[in-house]
Amino acid sequence: MAKARLQTEVEEKQVGGRKAQGERTRQAILEAAVHIASAEGLEGLTIGRLALELSMSKSGLFAHFGSKEELQVAIVETARSIFIREVIKPAFEANEGLLRLWTLCDIWLGYVQSGIFRGGCFFAAAAAEFDSRPGVVRDRIAEIMREWLSTLQRAVTEAQKAGQLKVGLDPIQLAFEFNSLELGANWEYQLYGDDQSFSRARAAINQRLTSYATAAGRRLLKATET
Amino acid sequence: MAKARLQTEVEEKQVGGRKAQGERTRQAILEAAVHIASAEGLEGLTIGRLALELSMSKSGLFAHFGSKEELQVAIVETARSIFIREVIKPAFEANEGLLRLWTLCDIWLGYVQSGIFRGGCFFAAAAAEFDSRPGVVRDRIAEIMREWLSTLQRAVTEAQKAGQLKVGLDPIQLAFEFNSLELGANWEYQLYGDDQSFSRARAAINQRLTSYATAAGRRLLKATET
Repeated sequence: MAKARLQTEVEEKQVGGRKAQGERTRQAILEAAVHIASAEGLEGLTIGRLALELSMSKSGLFAHFGSKEELQVAIVETARSIFIREVIKPAFEANEGLLRLWTLCDIWLGYVQSGIFRGGCFFAAAAAEFDSRPGVVRDRIAEIMREWLSTLQRAVTEAQKAGQLKVGLDPIQLAFEFNSLELGANWEYQLYGDDQSFSRARAAINQRLTSYATAAGRRLLKATET
Repeated sequence: MAKARLQTEVEEKQVGGRKAQGERTRQAILEAAVHIASAEGLEGLTIGRLALELSMSKSGLFAHFGSKEELQVAIVETARSIFIREVIKPAFEANEGLLRLWTLCDIWLGYVQSGIFRGGCFFAAAAAEFDSRPGVVRDRIAEIMREWLSTLQRAVTEAQKAGQLKVGLDPIQLAFEFNSLELGANWEYQLYGDDQSFSRARAAINQRLTSYATAAGRRLLKATET
């Protein structure tokens, strides 16, 4: 009995180990894929192209992702995790309200400029590629971008509640403008390699925030300049 | 002799007719291709895909465009002609300066909203697709977008010279902001089908212009509201 139990335990550990190993391989594949996809597009990223990049066999890749669509959705989820790690989490260390709103925009711009994704913002590229392709990939991209817009809107509302931004301001309008300025900076940087596009976006966002800030809000913004 | 001359003339007419006919066919192919490319991307637009859409043979299409790259460049030039016809020419009917600047943005937004290109702004989609693909197609897209940014910048400078916008304003900064808001509206409309993105962009542009306008400039802007 004891021997049988031991054997079962060893077998379970082996299966568990193989599963963990499989998960690590899957993650490594996805990390590589997300960078290729940000530059070359999700549709262009065939299993063959990825196999070549990772020196893996096509069948080895197929074992991890049953279809191209499954691979695409998994890449989108990986990009979302990277975005949360690199932008959302650090920005949420700033206090709720105006400072968090500014930090969300500031870190977003820094993250595109730093080239975390080879082809600039993954979601800007993926949205442009998939907006005319109905299906689960497009739906997931739209949902994730909606999360981002909602995060900006919520930060505006919190800043209003904290008496840092004027109450008459429409959170949806401001989130639209900030998202546009970020997309515009990403677009200009990808096309012309012009670093100044980021300072242009920052200047526009800061100008908008200052013009809508209360006296208390303006003091907070002043403090970020030093 | 007379007969020989007549024959030559008839032959020249036939060649000329065939050339004109060939040019018309080429234009019809390109008009169809530009709409497909705006939705599905330039890379996805294979000669095979286009042949299917137009019920033409692949070899017939190859006769007009020697290579995929030649077809892509021809599509980009066709999109530029459509853009000039639909946006630049009508906007240049407005007086130089502030009114032309506003009209350029207003018509641009209307033209995306009206769905002239099946997939929204052709150049926004093409830039996102090609910004990481070096080559003649990418270079031509970047040049054409530079023309658009320069047109916006020139309109700002003219408005300043006419005493309609404040002199301290940086034309490059304002052109960046307006282009970003237009790209943002296009992006949101393609992804969510939300018509309000256009009124959000118009509100932001109008707000910016009003805040930078001189008294004379504000009178001009007021007149556009009626």
